[in-house]
Amino acid sequence: MTDPMNAAVPTLVAEFEHSLLADIPLARAMQLRVAQYGDDELVLAAPLAPNVNDKGCAFGGSLASLLTLAGWGLIVLHLRATDRECEVYVQDSQMRYLAPVWEDLLAHARLADGESWQAFDAALATRGKARVRLHCRAPVAAGDACTLEARFVAIAKR
Amino acid sequence: MTDPMNAAVPTLVAEFEHSLLADIPLARAMQLRVAQYGDDELVLAAPLAPNVNDKGCAFGGSLASLLTLAGWGLIVLHLRATDRECEVYVQDSQMRYLAPVWEDLLAHARLADGESWQAFDAALATRGKARVRLHCRAPVAAGDACTLEARFVAIAKR
Repeated sequence: MTDPMNAAVPTLVAEFEHSLLADIPLARAMQLRVAQYGDDELVLAAPLAPNVNDKGCAFGGSLASLLTLAGWGLIVLHLRATDRECEVYVQDSQMRYLAPVWEDLLAHARLADGESWQAFDAALATRGKARVRLHCRAPVAAGDACTLEARFVAIAKR
Repeated sequence: MTDPMNAAVPTLVAEFEHSLLADIPLARAMQLRVAQYGDDELVLAAPLAPNVNDKGCAFGGSLASLLTLAGWGLIVLHLRATDRECEVYVQDSQMRYLAPVWEDLLAHARLADGESWQAFDAALATRGKARVRLHCRAPVAAGDACTLEARFVAIAKR
C-alpha cells in the first residue's frame, strides 16, 4: 500500500506532514518536511539553520528527533494507507553519531533487516498490537552521518 | 570542582544556560533551563507545552534532546569548573521509553556505574582526549519515564 502509484499516497503524505507540524511544536521549530515517500522508505528533511548546535553543525537532539520521527512516520503512513487506527509509540532506540552534519538534515527510515509489513500486519490483526524494528539514517556525501535502530509498537484504537 | 560550595559554580551554571539558549535554537524552542547542578549531577528542565507530541504527552525527540543535553552539559560544566577548553561530542546512545510523560520534563545526568572524573581527567591530561559514559533519566512520580545511556568524547582544543 506504499506503492508510489497509489493515487491516495500524495494526499496521505500531505496530511501527515500537516498533522506533524500542527501537533508537535518541536517539528515546527525544526522546520521539518516530508522529502519523499515510496518504496517502503520515508525521507524527512529539515534545514540546518534552526537545527544547529554550539559548533554550527547539526544538533544531536535534532538528528535524534528527525530520525525517530522518520521511523514513526513510516509506520503511521503504512497504517493510514491501509486505513487502520492505531497509536504508534517508540519503545527504545540506539543512536550512533558517526560524523558531524554541516548541511541540511535528511533522515531516511526503512524496516530493519528481518522485518516485514506482512508480519506486522498479521500481528496487528491477530492481537491488536504489533512491534517492528526500523533502521534510520542521516546520509551525507561521505556516508551515513548517524544511524538509529529503533523499536516501535502500534496499538489498535478499537 | 563540582562542589556546590564552590563560589564560581552559580556563575558557571548561569553562563552555561545562557550559551545553551544562545547557541542552540532547539534548546530555545524547548524552553530548556538548568534546574540544579551539584553533587556531580546536572538536572535540566523544560515545560511540557512546547514539548508535546500528537498525543499531548512529551515528544520523544524532546526527551532524547533533553537527556542528551543534560549528559553533554554535565561534562561541559565539569570542564569549565576546572578551566579546560574542550569540544564535547556525543558518540552513541541507547534510549528506553518506559512510560509517557504528562508533566513538565526533567532530565538528570550522572556518570554511569564504573566511570570516574579522575579517570576522565587523567586521560584528557595524558592524551588530550577522553571518553566517558553517562546515565541520564527522566523521572516522574511512578519512576523513570525514560533512560539514556550515552558515551561522550571530550577533545582538548589546545
